[in-house]
Amino acid sequence: MSCNFGEKIKITIFGQSHSDAIGVVVDGLPAGKKLDMDKIYDFMARRAPGKNKFSTQRKEADLPEILSGVVDGTTCGAPLCAVIRNGDTRSKDYENLRTVPRPAHADFTAFFKHNGFNDVRGGGNFSGRMTAPLCFAGAVSMQFLEDKGIKIGAHIEKIAGVSDKKYNSVNVDFADTDKKEFPVLDDAQGEKMREKIEEARKNADSVGGVIECAITGLPVGLGEPMFDGIENVISHAVFAVPAVKGIEFGSGFDGADLYGSENNDSFTVSDGTIVTETNNHGGILGGISSGMPVVFRVAMKPTPSIGQSQKSVNLLKREEEELTIIGRHDPCVVPRAVPCIEAAAAIAIMNLI
Amino acid sequence: MSCNFGEKIKITIFGQSHSDAIGVVVDGLPAGKKLDMDKIYDFMARRAPGKNKFSTQRKEADLPEILSGVVDGTTCGAPLCAVIRNGDTRSKDYENLRTVPRPAHADFTAFFKHNGFNDVRGGGNFSGRMTAPLCFAGAVSMQFLEDKGIKIGAHIEKIAGVSDKKYNSVNVDFADTDKKEFPVLDDAQGEKMREKIEEARKNADSVGGVIECAITGLPVGLGEPMFDGIENVISHAVFAVPAVKGIEFGSGFDGADLYGSENNDSFTVSDGTIVTETNNHGGILGGISSGMPVVFRVAMKPTPSIGQSQKSVNLLKREEEELTIIGRHDPCVVPRAVPCIEAAAAIAIMNLI
Amino acid sequence: MSCNFGEKIKITIFGQSHSDAIGVVVDGLPAGKKLDMDKIYDFMARRAPGKNKFSTQRKEADLPEILSGVVDGTTCGAPLCAVIRNGDTRSKDYENLRTVPRPAHADFTAFFKHNGFNDVRGGGNFSGRMTAPLCFAGAVSMQFLEDKGIKIGAHIEKIAGVSDKKYNSVNVDFADTDKKEFPVLDDAQGEKMREKIEEARKNADSVGGVIECAITGLPVGLGEPMFDGIENVISHAVFAVPAVKGIEFGSGFDGADLYGSENNDSFTVSDGTIVTETNNHGGILGGISSGMPVVFRVAMKPTPSIGQSQKSVNLLKREEEELTIIGRHDPCVVPRAVPCIEAAAAIAIMNLI
Amino acid sequence: MSCNFGEKIKITIFGQSHSDAIGVVVDGLPAGKKLDMDKIYDFMARRAPGKNKFSTQRKEADLPEILSGVVDGTTCGAPLCAVIRNGDTRSKDYENLRTVPRPAHADFTAFFKHNGFNDVRGGGNFSGRMTAPLCFAGAVSMQFLEDKGIKIGAHIEKIAGVSDKKYNSVNVDFADTDKKEFPVLDDAQGEKMREKIEEARKNADSVGGVIECAITGLPVGLGEPMFDGIENVISHAVFAVPAVKGIEFGSGFDGADLYGSENNDSFTVSDGTIVTETNNHGGILGGISSGMPVVFRVAMKPTPSIGQSQKSVNLLKREEEELTIIGRHDPCVVPRAVPCIEAAAAIAIMNLI
Repeated sequence: MSCNFGEKIKITIFGQSHSDAIGVVVDGLPAGKKLDMDKIYDFMARRAPGKNKFSTQRKEADLPEILSGVVDGTTCGAPLCAVIRNGDTRSKDYENLRTVPRPAHADFTAFFKHNGFNDVRGGGNFSGRMTAPLCFAGAVSMQFLEDKGIKIGAHIEKIAGVSDKKYNSVNVDFADTDKKEFPVLDDAQGEKMREKIEEARKNADSVGGVIECAITGLPVGLGEPMFDGIENVISHAVFAVPAVKGIEFGSGFDGADLYGSENNDSFTVSDGTIVTETNNHGGILGGISSGMPVVFRVAMKPTPSIGQSQKSVNLLKREEEELTIIGRHDPCVVPRAVPCIEAAAAIAIMNLI
Repeated sequence: MSCNFGEKIKITIFGQSHSDAIGVVVDGLPAGKKLDMDKIYDFMARRAPGKNKFSTQRKEADLPEILSGVVDGTTCGAPLCAVIRNGDTRSKDYENLRTVPRPAHADFTAFFKHNGFNDVRGGGNFSGRMTAPLCFAGAVSMQFLEDKGIKIGAHIEKIAGVSDKKYNSVNVDFADTDKKEFPVLDDAQGEKMREKIEEARKNADSVGGVIECAITGLPVGLGEPMFDGIENVISHAVFAVPAVKGIEFGSGFDGADLYGSENNDSFTVSDGTIVTETNNHGGILGGISSGMPVVFRVAMKPTPSIGQSQKSVNLLKREEEELTIIGRHDPCVVPRAVPCIEAAAAIAIMNLI
Repeated sequence: MSCNFGEKIKITIFGQSHSDAIGVVVDGLPAGKKLDMDKIYDFMARRAPGKNKFSTQRKEADLPEILSGVVDGTTCGAPLCAVIRNGDTRSKDYENLRTVPRPAHADFTAFFKHNGFNDVRGGGNFSGRMTAPLCFAGAVSMQFLEDKGIKIGAHIEKIAGVSDKKYNSVNVDFADTDKKEFPVLDDAQGEKMREKIEEARKNADSVGGVIECAITGLPVGLGEPMFDGIENVISHAVFAVPAVKGIEFGSGFDGADLYGSENNDSFTVSDGTIVTETNNHGGILGGISSGMPVVFRVAMKPTPSIGQSQKSVNLLKREEEELTIIGRHDPCVVPRAVPCIEAAAAIAIMNLI
Repeated sequence: MSCNFGEKIKITIFGQSHSDAIGVVVDGLPAGKKLDMDKIYDFMARRAPGKNKFSTQRKEADLPEILSGVVDGTTCGAPLCAVIRNGDTRSKDYENLRTVPRPAHADFTAFFKHNGFNDVRGGGNFSGRMTAPLCFAGAVSMQFLEDKGIKIGAHIEKIAGVSDKKYNSVNVDFADTDKKEFPVLDDAQGEKMREKIEEARKNADSVGGVIECAITGLPVGLGEPMFDGIENVISHAVFAVPAVKGIEFGSGFDGADLYGSENNDSFTVSDGTIVTETNNHGGILGGISSGMPVVFRVAMKPTPSIGQSQKSVNLLKREEEELTIIGRHDPCVVPRAVPCIEAAAAIAIMNLI
């Protein structure tokens, strides 16, 4: 029951990284919308390793194949199913993980949850690869939302303690970071971040970071008080992205240290529209959209899989055992997670519209 | 649809702060459990203003009245409904809010959401008072969870920038803060916090803070990957508490600045049980419980209602208008929110067990 | 989890017939609708024993009391909760039922389900009385539906084998049966039915019957194929009414004996609208409304509680034991169930609109 | 949102009969169960036209391909997705249906629902072919249920007015009808039914019928009162099967004509177990299982697609127009629907266990 999200637009994700395929079913999309498949591929390419999104050499295996719900490129009102065949797998790397779990990884919990029958290969269905179907659903959702004037974008706000600029939360400028290979607002800071990542790679270590995401164009009044406010629904979706360990809206944890007189946003009128002068509330009041941009930040822990030797236990012998993870591992997932956070926000908003 | 939470244990909250009553329906509780009503009243008293929880002088109006689901103090398997009559209301204080919304408050969004028909009195159903039914549901849930060895507790971790000690996340000691009037671990720090609150009150201002919450005794394997992990479900419930603007699990945003070698928790064996030496993962790996305590922190913004004059707009005239809020307002809701955070965690865990 | 229905409009029913009160929470109603409370009372009076609905002598205890969701008679967008205090209970009649279950009644199943902790008094939450909250939710829903031109009505189609006329399914005439004490189209047949009921009463026996319900004014295109078609949703709601054992739409079981050439309804044009010449499809094609009246029939078993001596078992001794039920029991619930069926249809349609 | 069913075990069905593939995702299956794929194929073969289930010449295209959720034939706890490629389509037959809908078919309603963008080919996602994924999910569920001693079976109870024997509802004997090509208890009656079907085929007409289904081995106490009783959940699932227009449990509509003294089932003790002497309640009391077999009957309307000329309208011109359906059409879907009804019952019970 974990792989389902939403009521108006129901999203069901299936697959493990080493099963035959992974995929998603999106049910509830209105009929009659012509989907731009190239934009969807480009969006998904932003998350896939070793891909230049403007290149014409896409790894065929990573292209989502639509099985249903679309006729001649137009949604027909029936559930939309897309699958991605799994290829390029290396099963050998994962054998010893069944008995000696990787620290900070889901091996341990999944083993106990499924009594040893979980699919360990590549992390089973806990793998970062599972963000591909999420991104597909998000990309499709974003096309519907754009028709309503709603835009969603995100950038790397921090990696390894090196900070990018933040969005101007009153008037968000996405600055086309979705077209950049390294999605930051300040490219100089981006360079420093990349150096930190390389340094970690050389040390067989990893780094984490923070992603800032914004949603503009929301109408006033979206969301419900109490349990289905915008914060509730967005956070419920965002924590589906692996490695996410925190989320804050508007002034968030910093705002908790301010006085009310500092944190409250005054109302004013601008071009006949009621807006706020500042946006510490992050576009959400009482769980409901105020019309100002929704802005939130997501904390991503450093990648658990590091090459350095780590202390673990042998689950069968119940003794400590050292573990060294071999294989290809990304020292920082934050850049690849940027479209995933946008996608999570998109499916959340689709369910509130 | 905002006032419903959960699938296994369905919680439905109703009422506005100035309607005849507020209440909650909890559906799905197993039959045969004798509820300790005194413990429930004590728990709810921790959130109510002007209450010394050991005092015998409870304001009768605030006692929840059970309408169904319990026979001779024992649950009978049918839905449990409890209501709290509303009294001590002062409707006069709220008349001008319909046209001039309070900054950082839900007046504005609710007005537009319900086309002016929202109940503005006392914040309608956006009021902090709505946490009373939430706390009732949480208190009932906690009794069931305790039978399974699961304990939930929280304390004020910070107010106005003054910090308390944190829990030892590997071996949480709740230190009976639930019996204190001001729930902190370090009473000296608590005193400084209270001074800050008083200072804010004198300045007709407000302060915010952070609450740290821990859950011990969870079995390994609770939660589902992707959308129904423990972080997803807990955050979905916690954002129902007014003024919450952020949540982080384990090392959270701080962990985002660490190296993997620093943030990963090594596995080890202790008394035949597999544990981790540190607990940066906050008891959750891949959305699933590891058996270590679940520890999370919640950011609460400073109370929006301050006595200082603020800039707002007249919604009808669409012009700026100054607003001064009269009436009794708490300069800091953090102490009263502590049981609310525990309650939110409790109903989340009840749905995962 | 049984007492919840719906996604767009969530209905939660609570209470047992001998708890302090029974009630319902309806969440999701739009704000701004002025409710006609007299119409709601009249609707509910159609189900209550010993009530002449035009009388001004209502039993006060049976009037629903609205606790929330309505301000000055107008919905305010927050959940609407209504409770009915329980009175006029006679607990003595039910003591021996714990060990000797009534045949065809839920005593047996409830006992085993809740390990003996179920509330046996008056049938606990399996009682016919639980239809009162359902009727309240239905009555409220019907006012919203009427604003959209949707009307719902039902009549007794058969009792004890004596048949009323059926609706003209192409052009339904409700004939104001909701204003009659005994809701039939053909009063002469109604008289014969009443004689059968009296005869059963004298013999300490009971009779069952069939209710026919129709919904007019539905737009074309309501409902979803597969699992959320109109038949799925209506039957899911209708089986919540006690004693219901069957449901059929359009030509139903009779249609199963026809040829396609007989059962198919031809399309034609009437006043520029596409209609069907006959209505064997009961207004539903592929789960979706065709614009023709939705017509369905519901089978109600004879009341289980009869005065005649019956064979049962003593659950503790596991031996046969004779059982004679004392107390006041209605020999036929069909007349009182008529508004319940309408209410179930109403909450179903509210969730499809 | 129509293609989703269930909470504990979530089933999502996707595809249209002429999309690339159709399929299903089943989420929530416990890990560790070795699936017997041959049994699943045999089950699905019972619904597919032109298939002898013991033949080794299966049409490859109709074999479900498992994409995820199973590792080495054993469930791994992750969502199970199976797809069936669509082949053998004949798109030409369906072109004129967009403007001239087939009577009693979903063309009309789907057209208006999706504003003309629905997939008309082969009935889009309203096709009988969509029962294939339903049957897959049902077949998988039945293997889990068998481990708990629960068996589900069904037979043709009537076709074109010719009746089979009924089950002995107190002690159901499934009589291996699942191994017969024409699943009836009385083969002589089966022959007469087949003659009726042939007769209809020659007349370019169609016939309908009734399917009787039984579930044995249920524990006492399954199901919830009010909205999630066994009748509610089973009927919600069963109406997903195309052509179903009615359902009745136990003595159903016939029982509505009986006296309580006739319809009530007496309790008695048999081998230490409490049973009923008769089973008019169909194994369900107050929505909850009594331990006796659950028995229900389903009405299936005659196939809408008949070769005879029919009266319809041209949706664009809004005038009457004659319609003759060409192509291959089954004059009676009842035999092929038998496993579909079992499958619907299976997924319903899986969600109640």
